[in-house]
Amino acid sequence: MSYRDPDGSLLSRLMESLRCLPGVGPKSAQRMAFHLLERDREGALALSHALAEAVEHIGRCKSCRTLTEHDYCSICSNGNRDVAQLCIVESPADLSAIEQSTGFRGRYFVLMGRLSPIDGIGPDELGLDVLEKRLDSGDVREVILATSATLEGETTAHFIKEMVSRRGIAVTRIAHGVPMGGELEYVDGNTLSRAFSARQTL
Amino acid sequence: MSYRDPDGSLLSRLMESLRCLPGVGPKSAQRMAFHLLERDREGALALSHALAEAVEHIGRCKSCRTLTEHDYCSICSNGNRDVAQLCIVESPADLSAIEQSTGFRGRYFVLMGRLSPIDGIGPDELGLDVLEKRLDSGDVREVILATSATLEGETTAHFIKEMVSRRGIAVTRIAHGVPMGGELEYVDGNTLSRAFSARQTL
Repeated sequence: MSYRDPDGSLLSRLMESLRCLPGVGPKSAQRMAFHLLERDREGALALSHALAEAVEHIGRCKSCRTLTEHDYCSICSNGNRDVAQLCIVESPADLSAIEQSTGFRGRYFVLMGRLSPIDGIGPDELGLDVLEKRLDSGDVREVILATSATLEGETTAHFIKEMVSRRGIAVTRIAHGVPMGGELEYVDGNTLSRAFSARQTL
Repeated sequence: MSYRDPDGSLLSRLMESLRCLPGVGPKSAQRMAFHLLERDREGALALSHALAEAVEHIGRCKSCRTLTEHDYCSICSNGNRDVAQLCIVESPADLSAIEQSTGFRGRYFVLMGRLSPIDGIGPDELGLDVLEKRLDSGDVREVILATSATLEGETTAHFIKEMVSRRGIAVTRIAHGVPMGGELEYVDGNTLSRAFSARQTL
């Protein structure tokens, strides 16, 4: 249903390119292209520059592997953040979610994925060699596993737990259970079963 | 809820810039930025170039005012399209919708808006002077009004109808009524009332 200009024009190339954005299909791409060209050419130019500069300059933090335009990200280069607590997450988006809603003042390590042998993602792809060096430095007292509650996230957590325990460092996993505000009758069985077996003494 | 890097980084600038796209809020912008930087840097660069080139080269067709990178769009420069039928639409998106679903083989005139005195959009902003010249050329035998079925779209249609009738050229308006596949009980009252009063002899 996308707009087709028979001559493979700049307009259709723009629509095609917009589809690299997640969640953008042919209809949205068309709407975006028309909107930018009819009403916000300035915004389109600003976006063009922001994309080019981001791709050129943004790399990974040498210490925690998150996205940053510097050698070290703003958290790793912040002397006030506690080096003794290391929270392990799967992605920069997860890091950002934790930063926004918890009072965590420690450091992070971003895996940029999770163990998935089928997709060829093993310990090396997740930078676990970098993590090992960091654990061996002796600064870290507690590793907090905040990988996702999926099969692969759990596998990853388990793998890292072994790595950390071997060095005599404490390991914790973020809690899983019924979400706040969640009505029991609408919570999925898996979550409920886990919440039940992980019940805590009051 | 958007990711904030305290130092006004390229990453936050990219997220900010992505919000010029229609329908993209802070959460989607974050997801798009992370997706591009983590998984599709090539797509991001292609998009950056497509945006810059589109903004630089795409202007309006000298004849019908639609978006094109040439002096005349592919429809206006196509000798096989009938000059006697002129379909008037509000936007390139409307033109594209008609091209895709009807067998119309005439030409178009794109208003790039609709009459709206409150927003300062009068006949000049819609290029009605250009349209007048086209009508005066003597080629056009029928003007098909395909502006939207809103108050402003109707006003615009009415205004153009007067302009065209004055020159003794036939004017038609696309039909309004119950959409195909629409159940009467779910059609809004306005549409139903119009469909009823515009009933046709079989």
